[in-house]
Amino acid sequence: MTGRKSMRVTVWNENVHETTETEVAERYPDGIHGAVASAITDHHPEAVVRTATLADPEHGLTEEVLADTDVLTWWGHKAHEEVDDAVVERVQRHVLSGMGLVVLHSGHLSKVFRALLGTTCNLDWRCERDRELVWTVDPAHPIAQGVPHPVVIDQQEMYGEFFDIPAPDELVFISSFSGGEVFRSGCTFRRGHGRIFYFSPGDQAFPVYHHADVRKVIANGVQWAVPTRERDLPALHNRPAGWFA
Amino acid sequence: MTGRKSMRVTVWNENVHETTETEVAERYPDGIHGAVASAITDHHPEAVVRTATLADPEHGLTEEVLADTDVLTWWGHKAHEEVDDAVVERVQRHVLSGMGLVVLHSGHLSKVFRALLGTTCNLDWRCERDRELVWTVDPAHPIAQGVPHPVVIDQQEMYGEFFDIPAPDELVFISSFSGGEVFRSGCTFRRGHGRIFYFSPGDQAFPVYHHADVRKVIANGVQWAVPTRERDLPALHNRPAGWFA
Amino acid sequence: MTGRKSMRVTVWNENVHETTETEVAERYPDGIHGAVASAITDHHPEAVVRTATLADPEHGLTEEVLADTDVLTWWGHKAHEEVDDAVVERVQRHVLSGMGLVVLHSGHLSKVFRALLGTTCNLDWRCERDRELVWTVDPAHPIAQGVPHPVVIDQQEMYGEFFDIPAPDELVFISSFSGGEVFRSGCTFRRGHGRIFYFSPGDQAFPVYHHADVRKVIANGVQWAVPTRERDLPALHNRPAGWFA
Amino acid sequence: MTGRKSMRVTVWNENVHETTETEVAERYPDGIHGAVASAITDHHPEAVVRTATLADPEHGLTEEVLADTDVLTWWGHKAHEEVDDAVVERVQRHVLSGMGLVVLHSGHLSKVFRALLGTTCNLDWRCERDRELVWTVDPAHPIAQGVPHPVVIDQQEMYGEFFDIPAPDELVFISSFSGGEVFRSGCTFRRGHGRIFYFSPGDQAFPVYHHADVRKVIANGVQWAVPTRERDLPALHNRPAGWFA
Repeated sequence: MTGRKSMRVTVWNENVHETTETEVAERYPDGIHGAVASAITDHHPEAVVRTATLADPEHGLTEEVLADTDVLTWWGHKAHEEVDDAVVERVQRHVLSGMGLVVLHSGHLSKVFRALLGTTCNLDWRCERDRELVWTVDPAHPIAQGVPHPVVIDQQEMYGEFFDIPAPDELVFISSFSGGEVFRSGCTFRRGHGRIFYFSPGDQAFPVYHHADVRKVIANGVQWAVPTRERDLPALHNRPAGWFA
Repeated sequence: MTGRKSMRVTVWNENVHETTETEVAERYPDGIHGAVASAITDHHPEAVVRTATLADPEHGLTEEVLADTDVLTWWGHKAHEEVDDAVVERVQRHVLSGMGLVVLHSGHLSKVFRALLGTTCNLDWRCERDRELVWTVDPAHPIAQGVPHPVVIDQQEMYGEFFDIPAPDELVFISSFSGGEVFRSGCTFRRGHGRIFYFSPGDQAFPVYHHADVRKVIANGVQWAVPTRERDLPALHNRPAGWFA
Repeated sequence: MTGRKSMRVTVWNENVHETTETEVAERYPDGIHGAVASAITDHHPEAVVRTATLADPEHGLTEEVLADTDVLTWWGHKAHEEVDDAVVERVQRHVLSGMGLVVLHSGHLSKVFRALLGTTCNLDWRCERDRELVWTVDPAHPIAQGVPHPVVIDQQEMYGEFFDIPAPDELVFISSFSGGEVFRSGCTFRRGHGRIFYFSPGDQAFPVYHHADVRKVIANGVQWAVPTRERDLPALHNRPAGWFA
Repeated sequence: MTGRKSMRVTVWNENVHETTETEVAERYPDGIHGAVASAITDHHPEAVVRTATLADPEHGLTEEVLADTDVLTWWGHKAHEEVDDAVVERVQRHVLSGMGLVVLHSGHLSKVFRALLGTTCNLDWRCERDRELVWTVDPAHPIAQGVPHPVVIDQQEMYGEFFDIPAPDELVFISSFSGGEVFRSGCTFRRGHGRIFYFSPGDQAFPVYHHADVRKVIANGVQWAVPTRERDLPALHNRPAGWFA
């Protein structure tokens, strides 16, 4: 944003696995939101990062919080249906008004992502310790800067095609898995005045959000999604002839 | 569809203006749906075309009707909010499963179109007898075949940018208006297994659906949107390693 | 083409490996052009298919031949630089005028493909009997109809990213290789009035052009690339005001 | 560029009209290159801007100059064919290696632009003092920031569709003309590692490069095209199995 020194990021996490499964809690002692937040602050020390979770009132995503957020990141898995529809509509409205959105991994089935894309966002999956390789297919894209080609993730859940999304505006990364599957793992979408980045690596069952390259991509994606203009929702205008003269 | 001789088209119309405004009823004595249906049968005599309207039970869009429809066309304006959400979800599901959809003019604000695109679909407008010129920017596209460059529509409602849609997969037509505005008037979108064509010319206040070139474009759009495969909704699959061997 | 019963296809092949290497000659006794031609006629018995090779006068691609060709397929590898620049310009002109073009495998470095795309078309490669899996990422695309998901090719040359092409207009297939690499293996591009399909599976060192699914994709690609309109090169027009009235 | 304080811009101009036609010389006393250069420095005082013209040795575009250029802007009209092919190849190589390129107005027919896009780049035109309106269709794009909607240019050459370019990666602006034509007037293309912005407003016959909004767009376009990574040409790599481990 013009003249703003630091970006304001809200890291949203369902936070159900961490609070109900010991293994996940040990893997992510600060929650997945804590790991994601630290990825952002490690790369953007000037960023103002807050976190919010499902259990918070209004899931921590009040009008005030969203109005004060340049980029929202989203992680959910088990409890997509527990997210209140009013909050989903609010997030969608803020994205269309210009707020950036970074959707992570199983967030592909979140209400927010599906409402913004309009498709089922279904895919193939397998949770069996595949190795994932993340290849850059748009090497000059800002989100790919400083990222190895390929990123090697030793153990990961497999996400495979067909991934039912609209053709992305930009395809940045394609992953392969040791089982042979491929996945469009880094995709951008412009919706309304907002920018959306979907990035699939990351799972509660593996320490992917501690992986240096994954953290770099998330930090790049957040920076890329920062709004370029004042927030406003595209509106219906009745224009008299010659209105622009 | 493989081996099918004739395409099955359902022409949906809100049918409110025609039943409440004398002028519109005189302009479209068979309803806008009648005019659209005849555009299709004039160019595709083999097509099986039925019509359905808001007042019909389930708006005429039962599961049986949609399952028997290759391409659905949609016209609505005054009564978008009266369309039942269950029907909207049903139509969306059929489009994502492969049914073609042609959205006409003020259908840009229909629940169906907005659910599939995820944006506000807002735009600028003016109803003052502008001349519209429809220019082809993708001359080899099937939808543009047999269509003059430009199409001249003597009197039309103005639809102007910014039109809040995702960047279309293909931009086929751009219109200008005598007031100076421009509009992305012919756009395609692939969503799930379905093809969507949006075409803006056409209004209850002008005899645009009697215009030969507009009728040709609609007929082309319907043909282009015919499914290429058996209908099925993209699904979530848990795939064991080596499942494809 | 309107009213034309059968598509006319010219299959071009460098035909150098087959005439200088016993192994390749045994693998492709009718040449790679023979194998490609039979893939097309197997699926489109009505097609009029001819072949042409580097050694023919003007490489078999005279003005007359191209004017009589709906879709040209291209295979080259060792002798890209021996293709005459005048022939390259002629092919490019015909594609921009509407002729379809299907570029196969190592044709990515042909003068014709590079002239039409404007980039280096470089990539990563390895010739070590990788298994290639070809995944469909646009399941409703005409080129993907009747094609398994994935296509399994037991032995293949690896082609990997980064593949230096413009972002394709449509991405139809993505391949993975047993070595872990990925590749955008099925891509479409519209250029001028012409349609271009690039499909990477296929090599002189492996019997890939005898693979049933690869043959199906080639046949689909040829059909998809058939022109929709009379051939003409986009021209510069000085238009007086009101020329269209 | 990482760690670089100021962008380095080279403004190229044919400089033939200005040196042979009194009217043009009076309109652009510092040449069109002077006007374009000042648009950039007005908005980016820190930029290091140099100019180069056709008459310079190697047209002022030596290997050294290009290696020291982040973004090149290009204006040409009468003398496209006088540009040396070796210089064209050098510019193309630098763009594919990452140098930004901003092509202005009649530069659509330059050898450089046509080589990078692969199409004829032909269009319709008329030089009769049309009013041009430049409408933003991607309001969140960096190039559209601070630009009115629409930009009003009182007198301009008309450029109309069909414009024979590949579908742009991003369509930022669409223009209308008082004669009724439309034109995709602001388009981006990624080629290799480089970013290309084409912007059509501007002509030797009108003082368009003194128009505040046009100057803002050019300055925005230059900034947008600045490379994101060290310059290198995408290469062909023979990769042994496991090379990335």
